[in-house]
Amino acid sequence: MLSTMQDVPLTVTRILKHGMTIHGRSQVTTWTGEEEPQRRTFADVGERATRLANALRDELGVDGDQRVATLMWNNAEHVEAYLAIPSMGAVLHPLNLRLPPEQLVWIVNHAADRVVIANGSLLPLLAPLLPHLKTVEHVVVSGPGDRSLLDGCAPRVHEYEELIADRPTTYAWPELDERSAAAMCYTSGTTGDPKGVVYSHRSIYLHSMQVNMAESMGLNDKDTTLVVVPQFHVMAWGLPHATFMTGINMLMPDRFLQPAPLAEMIEREKPTHAAAVPTIWQGLLAEVTANPRDLSSMASVTIGGAACPPALMEAYDKLGVRLCHAWGMTETSPLGTMAHPPAGLTPEEEWPYRVTQGRFPAGVEARLIGPGGEVLPWDGESAGELEVRGPWIAGAYYGGAAGEDFRPDDKFSEDGWLKTGDIGVISTDGFLTLTDRAKDVIKSGGEWISSVELENALMAHPDVAEAAVVAVPDDRWSERPLATVVLKEGATADYEELRAFLAGKIAKWQLPERWAMIPAVPKTSVGKFDKKVIRKQYADGELDVTKF
Amino acid sequence: MLSTMQDVPLTVTRILKHGMTIHGRSQVTTWTGEEEPQRRTFADVGERATRLANALRDELGVDGDQRVATLMWNNAEHVEAYLAIPSMGAVLHPLNLRLPPEQLVWIVNHAADRVVIANGSLLPLLAPLLPHLKTVEHVVVSGPGDRSLLDGCAPRVHEYEELIADRPTTYAWPELDERSAAAMCYTSGTTGDPKGVVYSHRSIYLHSMQVNMAESMGLNDKDTTLVVVPQFHVMAWGLPHATFMTGINMLMPDRFLQPAPLAEMIEREKPTHAAAVPTIWQGLLAEVTANPRDLSSMASVTIGGAACPPALMEAYDKLGVRLCHAWGMTETSPLGTMAHPPAGLTPEEEWPYRVTQGRFPAGVEARLIGPGGEVLPWDGESAGELEVRGPWIAGAYYGGAAGEDFRPDDKFSEDGWLKTGDIGVISTDGFLTLTDRAKDVIKSGGEWISSVELENALMAHPDVAEAAVVAVPDDRWSERPLATVVLKEGATADYEELRAFLAGKIAKWQLPERWAMIPAVPKTSVGKFDKKVIRKQYADGELDVTKF
Repeated sequence: MLSTMQDVPLTVTRILKHGMTIHGRSQVTTWTGEEEPQRRTFADVGERATRLANALRDELGVDGDQRVATLMWNNAEHVEAYLAIPSMGAVLHPLNLRLPPEQLVWIVNHAADRVVIANGSLLPLLAPLLPHLKTVEHVVVSGPGDRSLLDGCAPRVHEYEELIADRPTTYAWPELDERSAAAMCYTSGTTGDPKGVVYSHRSIYLHSMQVNMAESMGLNDKDTTLVVVPQFHVMAWGLPHATFMTGINMLMPDRFLQPAPLAEMIEREKPTHAAAVPTIWQGLLAEVTANPRDLSSMASVTIGGAACPPALMEAYDKLGVRLCHAWGMTETSPLGTMAHPPAGLTPEEEWPYRVTQGRFPAGVEARLIGPGGEVLPWDGESAGELEVRGPWIAGAYYGGAAGEDFRPDDKFSEDGWLKTGDIGVISTDGFLTLTDRAKDVIKSGGEWISSVELENALMAHPDVAEAAVVAVPDDRWSERPLATVVLKEGATADYEELRAFLAGKIAKWQLPERWAMIPAVPKTSVGKFDKKVIRKQYADGELDVTKF
Repeated sequence: MLSTMQDVPLTVTRILKHGMTIHGRSQVTTWTGEEEPQRRTFADVGERATRLANALRDELGVDGDQRVATLMWNNAEHVEAYLAIPSMGAVLHPLNLRLPPEQLVWIVNHAADRVVIANGSLLPLLAPLLPHLKTVEHVVVSGPGDRSLLDGCAPRVHEYEELIADRPTTYAWPELDERSAAAMCYTSGTTGDPKGVVYSHRSIYLHSMQVNMAESMGLNDKDTTLVVVPQFHVMAWGLPHATFMTGINMLMPDRFLQPAPLAEMIEREKPTHAAAVPTIWQGLLAEVTANPRDLSSMASVTIGGAACPPALMEAYDKLGVRLCHAWGMTETSPLGTMAHPPAGLTPEEEWPYRVTQGRFPAGVEARLIGPGGEVLPWDGESAGELEVRGPWIAGAYYGGAAGEDFRPDDKFSEDGWLKTGDIGVISTDGFLTLTDRAKDVIKSGGEWISSVELENALMAHPDVAEAAVVAVPDDRWSERPLATVVLKEGATADYEELRAFLAGKIAKWQLPERWAMIPAVPKTSVGKFDKKVIRKQYADGELDVTKF
């Protein structure tokens, strides 16, 4: 039996047309560092996006599904690019300006970007790369910055404002297949080449609806969201499209991401919501502790990218700002879970829920896979690798080395689920708690030992400054934990004392036999423990290991 | 360029599996008239739905896309049917128990329903129809009622609870195409045969997301919604599926739809939201005025099906209950608009928005078509027929007389939009105000005259009890308005006075030339003006018409 429903595609074009008309008076406010921020209505942003599309097509010859990259901060022009490029059928490719230059070059060449739209303030980063970008024919520059850095570069250079001036304010937007490519982001794996995730119009549209559902961020046109999470990082968690879908006002910090200007823009512009990683909130807290500001308009904050220390949540609770954990990744668009506690609980009862990664929406199916490949129960105890499935979850990576559409990867199960690489447990009521990364968990005799749990237990000892636990090969158990410990200055704890301290806190079979005192834990460029360095030091015999 | 996203279908099955696990402790509470209502968790409802699916397949042989009808009130068992039937790939067909018996018979035969699940209290309605239902092989009875009414009927009779007892609690749910049929409802047109609208899994899933978006009803698992709008009427405005998607608790009145039990269940169960037509709220207001009850838990109410008198909204404002207009129809799933005012307005400034039909979400595209077929601007003045387009809007009706999949109908434009049959204006900021029905509007010399506006203007005269305005043929102008007036007892106004009264309120060219005093305006079975009767009386020369 056939449905009688219309077959209307879910597209970014629809989001653009809806936002600029029905929500034409909602605003994108961009911080400029001047007395007054730049204020632009959705009607203006939509019209400028339309003119941008005309310019890209008529002046730069962008056609079909060609890639248009952005190297930009969060600002109105970047929102215009987010709307114009997918709507014309091209593919938006935001470049992560925090990546090492050689990775950026690799990514632009892999995606075959034809155009880069860049903020003037980022030309010092872009200019040295240009000679290595094989496919870029045009650079479009927006906002303040020294244009002379581009003198003599191979691509043609355009001024954004000049380019879009005097263009038509209508565009014959193509009828797009909702499964066609709309945007792409690369993940910056710690090993191997970056991997491209290509979002479809359908995935962006559905993800935008989810973001706006009451169970998720739940905002409407009475709200203003401070979008700190960069537009070059997983599509700014979907906010530029979600906001345009329902008229949520955007407050954009541009390059002013330091605690002082953030505190000022919150106090002055009174956003009701914000989204950022924990370090931003840590810095802001220090700032407002030193220089008090009223942050209380910001009733809810979505926090993701890393686990948020409970003490930070408590400190913000006191300021009238509620931090809510979300979990996701580039491959999940990124909304995977949000940690709103269930109904009817006291603030004390809510805590165990607030410190989890949160609950899955209907659009994200989840399963835990145990050490033997078996599907584990949701009992709050069985730890397995989290696999997810859904219409805004990646099922492949873009472009194989031999020219294939997709690149084979062991991140995807045979039945098409995404292996997240995260180890966790799920409670009977569906709350996810992540306990480790799959590559760091210790596979000991068919059971898993969480490196993170051992580290947290060790770091609770008053003499321990830092501790990193890694898996090392073991003849009998396949893998066993190696505990590497940094003692505080003047501390005297020895291995026996640390082993005894651990023994009361973890199962006996998890207790490490191998120990090493080290001067400091090696770190990655973003400050995370670099465990592959420790594993290599161990393999190369560079650590002074004591075995019990 | 291909997207790398997973291709996961949007299905009711996913809503079922998600609601019964992640939101397993949310509740469906059904009023029973006893001291304690029936309380059932989503986990229970989901398990019982699973057992129902097993029973329908194994015992009743339901297969493929066969239709399973329901003749039921709003209750937990009806929710189980809403979940089980689409999830197994069959088609749910709720029967509107308010329709005349001959229409019900026509509809069941047209849909070829194989099974009817009926509440025991509705057997007095169902039993006399059974001999005329050609395709019904099974009747399943749930809840109190006299079973002997079915003695000797042709279909096999089953007890719901016995039927689902001892069935497996798992089911190998099929992988469904999201565009396949999930449920159907028939519209009860005032003329011609009823027309079937067949919802797809995709349309139900997207509509459920929209209902739960902050800009629409915006509820989550901390809410309880009192679902007064019947499940046999446009899928209870989508609530049974929307609630299961995010764990919103349901309060179901079953057959206790009278003001007194509604007031009692609101005071006792404290729903935070409710959905119903204006007459329900009118009756409830009279009830609580006579017998005060605390309704204040019910912060928001979605009101649709007819325009709500502003005085009713004001009365509920004083009770702490905010009524919000929504507009839709069977063909729109039904969420078409909702009248949340834009941000930043005072209560006084909000009024002009609250009395509109509301604003369209991104999923509903709208256009106004003028008398000459032209697309009209959104200027708050240009009145045209509203046409809509979107993924939960019908593009056809089910089953032609000659066995076709679809039945041709002039409700659909050549480019596939739904002609709503409503005449209205849209403001520059996208708020819809309906002014008339297309079949009632007077097409005079290429311009449209709203019959409703003339009636309202006439009924503002102190001597006028009722007034109905209809289009009658006119040689020069094609159509002109005929004003039929019912005077209050003892009133003395004559045509000259009424014409002079109107002249100051409407454009001169709209002033009716033809007038008739009548004893009463003919009404339909649901109390609406029956204008086709007046038009026929005029055509047959039965009215005493004075022409100016």
